[in-house]
Amino acid sequence: MIGTSALLPTPERALASAFLACSGRGILFDCGEGTQTAMRKAGVSLMKTDLIALTHYHGDHIFGLPGLLQTMGSLERTRPLYITGPGDLAEAMDPILRLTDWVPYEIRLLPLPEGGLPLSSLDGRWPAGASLSAFPTVHRVPSRGYCFRLARAGRFDPARARALGVPQKLWGLLQRGEPQTVDGRVVEPADVCGAARRGIKVVYGGDTLPCPALTAAAAGADLLICEATYAEDESAPMAEQYGHTTFRQAAETAAEAGAKRLWLTHFSQSVKDPEAYLETIAGVFPATECGFDGKRTALYFED
Amino acid sequence: MIGTSALLPTPERALASAFLACSGRGILFDCGEGTQTAMRKAGVSLMKTDLIALTHYHGDHIFGLPGLLQTMGSLERTRPLYITGPGDLAEAMDPILRLTDWVPYEIRLLPLPEGGLPLSSLDGRWPAGASLSAFPTVHRVPSRGYCFRLARAGRFDPARARALGVPQKLWGLLQRGEPQTVDGRVVEPADVCGAARRGIKVVYGGDTLPCPALTAAAAGADLLICEATYAEDESAPMAEQYGHTTFRQAAETAAEAGAKRLWLTHFSQSVKDPEAYLETIAGVFPATECGFDGKRTALYFED
Repeated sequence: MIGTSALLPTPERALASAFLACSGRGILFDCGEGTQTAMRKAGVSLMKTDLIALTHYHGDHIFGLPGLLQTMGSLERTRPLYITGPGDLAEAMDPILRLTDWVPYEIRLLPLPEGGLPLSSLDGRWPAGASLSAFPTVHRVPSRGYCFRLARAGRFDPARARALGVPQKLWGLLQRGEPQTVDGRVVEPADVCGAARRGIKVVYGGDTLPCPALTAAAAGADLLICEATYAEDESAPMAEQYGHTTFRQAAETAAEAGAKRLWLTHFSQSVKDPEAYLETIAGVFPATECGFDGKRTALYFED
Repeated sequence: MIGTSALLPTPERALASAFLACSGRGILFDCGEGTQTAMRKAGVSLMKTDLIALTHYHGDHIFGLPGLLQTMGSLERTRPLYITGPGDLAEAMDPILRLTDWVPYEIRLLPLPEGGLPLSSLDGRWPAGASLSAFPTVHRVPSRGYCFRLARAGRFDPARARALGVPQKLWGLLQRGEPQTVDGRVVEPADVCGAARRGIKVVYGGDTLPCPALTAAAAGADLLICEATYAEDESAPMAEQYGHTTFRQAAETAAEAGAKRLWLTHFSQSVKDPEAYLETIAGVFPATECGFDGKRTALYFED
């Protein structure tokens, strides 16, 4: 978690954003003012970012872009940077790109394909099974959340590979999901691997009311990062009015989705001490934690 | 000093900007990304800002504007905010105002009149003698520095006031510089006060090469805030190339101008420990101090 504040940055909490890293490459979710500094504080290298995934275009989620893009330029980035977001991305990015001016790398606005974007199409260092997809959320403007998946192939079966005459030097490529041609016929990974195993799933909800698409996306997620702008149940009408979520609603979403862990973020200025409210929702989803700037974890395949 | 870094914000130094307060009102000089947070860290109320004075339109001096303007809106500002800057201010502000969107107060782009702007024309809480003027500087784009003056009237002479028949209830207004009508004739402040006394002068140079206009503006200044992007004399050619100033050149400017104090700011990332270089220029201008975020002083009339 790079930042965990809603609306206004504070000395303690930068505006809500998060960074997902895998094999040395990364996705930045949202980029409010101060994100570049918060990334440095969190020890996250800006330059690993391949893709910036915007959940919507309110200022507290995008005003850090001109500075971040210029800083990457002054750090002499040359490889392209991809930016994706809901609705009319080009229109939303226009004033930002006018401010940013020239940078020594290409900025590519990217629609996410239905079914998800294979991240290896952005940079070859992403594993073959890594993908990002978007789902619609319910805020006051066009908005969406993101689902990162790292698929895991089935277990490799050396006996089947030998039976098909696959030379050992090709085994690794088949394990990584790449079909190989052996004696003029194609051997598919499925021919030499068992059924796909459980991978990793991380969901970043962005700003939203609780909604079925978020719950569906978070089904079985290893980690759901969910906004929880308001801490108290009594704030539910305000959350409804402004298109946000309460602590309890976030916990209910995680519980219904069967997520493994829930991290709350995007705290209103009125929530001075988020941890103080955890007790009130512990019965709903015990694996709930409050976000803080720099909070991190590593996720691994389950065996 | 709100921020003291050049080009990139760091966890220790926000981008260079400064705040000048007088009688509860204030001027913000420059507004790079993160300025609103740095102001909060420094304990400076955003809402006291009447005027934002931009020295030029490079990103590290303006990318904090959309967030600052929106935050003032969410804090329910209603009185107008003035913004001034060199060259085509409206063109420079256009993408920023597009990003900022609607705010519940008026944003007024303001040219500074020749001879300076009486700040009481912005808000009645500024003293009558407070003014801001601009002078041209030498950077890679249109740029300027600012000179704040607080004029001080001459000593009030009760005997002359009595001789002119001025009722005692009008003395204070004459002392504040406001002419009064007494028995049908106008009494000027000069009629009842001695010669103007030494006031206060603060100069904020912005990004610039050393230049005669800066030295002239800083003549006798109580405080000169001068950029000193590069610490070592050997960096002078680089400073020349990028339109910046070295520590020694800043000290030479202050010495030549006969300023009382010099604060250095806008440090390059290469200057890890600015204080370490002060010794090398102590002979040039001993009253030199290195800026840091949150550094502050109060300036008083000399007697």
